Amino acid sequence: MEDQIVYFNGNFIPKSQVVISPDDRGFLFSDGVYEVIRSYNGKLFLFDKHIERLKYSLKEIRIDFDAFNYLKEISFKLLEMNNLIDADAVIYIQMTRGVFKRMHQFPTEKIPPTVYITANYTRYYPDEIEKGIKVITVKDLRWERCDIKTTALLANILAQQEARDANAIEAIFVKNGLVTEGSHTGVFGVKDDKVLTHPQNNKVLPSITRELVLQLAKICQIPVKEVPIYENQLYSLDEFFVVGTSTEITPVIQINNCLLNNGIPGKITRLLQAEFKKTIEKL
Amino acid sequence: MEDQIVYFNGNFIPKSQVVISPDDRGFLFSDGVYEVIRSYNGKLFLFDKHIERLKYSLKEIRIDFDAFNYLKEISFKLLEMNNLIDADAVIYIQMTRGVFKRMHQFPTEKIPPTVYITANYTRYYPDEIEKGIKVITVKDLRWERCDIKTTALLANILAQQEARDANAIEAIFVKNGLVTEGSHTGVFGVKDDKVLTHPQNNKVLPSITRELVLQLAKICQIPVKEVPIYENQLYSLDEFFVVGTSTEITPVIQINNCLLNNGIPGKITRLLQAEFKKTIEKL
Repeated sequence: MEDQIVYFNGNFIPKSQVVISPDDRGFLFSDGVYEVIRSYNGKLFLFDKHIERLKYSLKEIRIDFDAFNYLKEISFKLLEMNNLIDADAVIYIQMTRGVFKRMHQFPTEKIPPTVYITANYTRYYPDEIEKGIKVITVKDLRWERCDIKTTALLANILAQQEARDANAIEAIFVKNGLVTEGSHTGVFGVKDDKVLTHPQNNKVLPSITRELVLQLAKICQIPVKEVPIYENQLYSLDEFFVVGTSTEITPVIQINNCLLNNGIPGKITRLLQAEFKKTIEKL
Repeated sequence: MEDQIVYFNGNFIPKSQVVISPDDRGFLFSDGVYEVIRSYNGKLFLFDKHIERLKYSLKEIRIDFDAFNYLKEISFKLLEMNNLIDADAVIYIQMTRGVFKRMHQFPTEKIPPTVYITANYTRYYPDEIEKGIKVITVKDLRWERCDIKTTALLANILAQQEARDANAIEAIFVKNGLVTEGSHTGVFGVKDDKVLTHPQNNKVLPSITRELVLQLAKICQIPVKEVPIYENQLYSLDEFFVVGTSTEITPVIQINNCLLNNGIPGKITRLLQAEFKKTIEKL
């Protein structure tokens, strides 16, 4: 999309005209947060949940922003202007504390946050969702506020690259022997027909797809235990899957060098995928 | 400095003309590193040490850059072009993985890193260095690779602001009951005429001023123990000071609500400050 129109600080402009200042605190300090929201054929999926999380992230790092009511309108307009109304698209929203001469403390004058929003085609991998993926485990080196969706993503980036280097699609973080989440996904295990996932706390992002999957499991009457999966329990799981806004529900068929369920996506994963599909079709 | 000249990707241009792309991985992911180097009257202080650390940071996050030999020339030129040769100045160097469409993994094509370098007057606080400062302690929430000088500084930013909110100048990180370092300084304690500081490992930045202070202590024949200071030992220290490129050696006279040494900078701090001054004068 060469002529992509984006939203930047109040204006709809070609992306090529966006000027991020080198004094933007997002650039200097990763002093900002973001959201990624899926749009299925012009229907913004769980939009309010994403905005709720954005509010939480902004509040936790103390960035003042209150024009939340405009974000839906801006998102629709971007979908329209980029001919994405009938597409499978993603809205990306990034907000930083704004532009100010470099100092670690917050700016000493009131400044507006930087607001940057784009609409793009979803990078969607139906093959992965169908056949399942390989993941690797990596040490969770991240900070202790993973509940905030900040752009301070370097640990995630390095983990994701480690996965790619190992011909895997995702890196699964392990902290003190416990599985937390993926580098950009939430994770679930299945053992003896029970679904297991890390409880929501400061160690994992409040994943919106995770929350949805918990609801879908309820609908399917699959018991769920919100407990961390032990690293040494991983290979004996019956099923494992990762979830996210773009990832949806993607089966994991290999963890490191070990095949799960002979490399075939498991039945509970399939059940939840079907229920997920129904949810999208009902939109 | 309205007409400040900066270096950006090969060119010396007015800062107002720098365009950071919204697809710069520094902006999107804090996928970059930086250095701050002091220049006293045109003499770049410990320049090679800073470049060595920059090399280390780049290597650890796997950004390819090899034009290190040009950085000194660029720095001098920036000092000249901004009339900072006779000033107390700082060179700021930031490098990111470059500009590429947003994806967590490294760019799938070879792209040049973003290189941004500025020269500015030092923000220097002689009063703080003379009279000492108040600090607060905060929980060290940072990731487990604090030995890399990345721009993923959000935890540092929030800590520094917490200090400012408490009318303090610096926030001192405490991890599992042990003092690691400050939000943008290294830290030293003095007890029974011995100097204490956290050993160099993944929990602290390889501070160049810290290394210098260790050398100065040796010159002054002050015994040093590279061991972490316990949080509950803080108030019974005889002296405490923070160090850094801009901070130099700044005495701490108050930790949280507790005065140290009746609010008077201690004698070993003064000795090291005097030795530091001599080092600068000899440049």
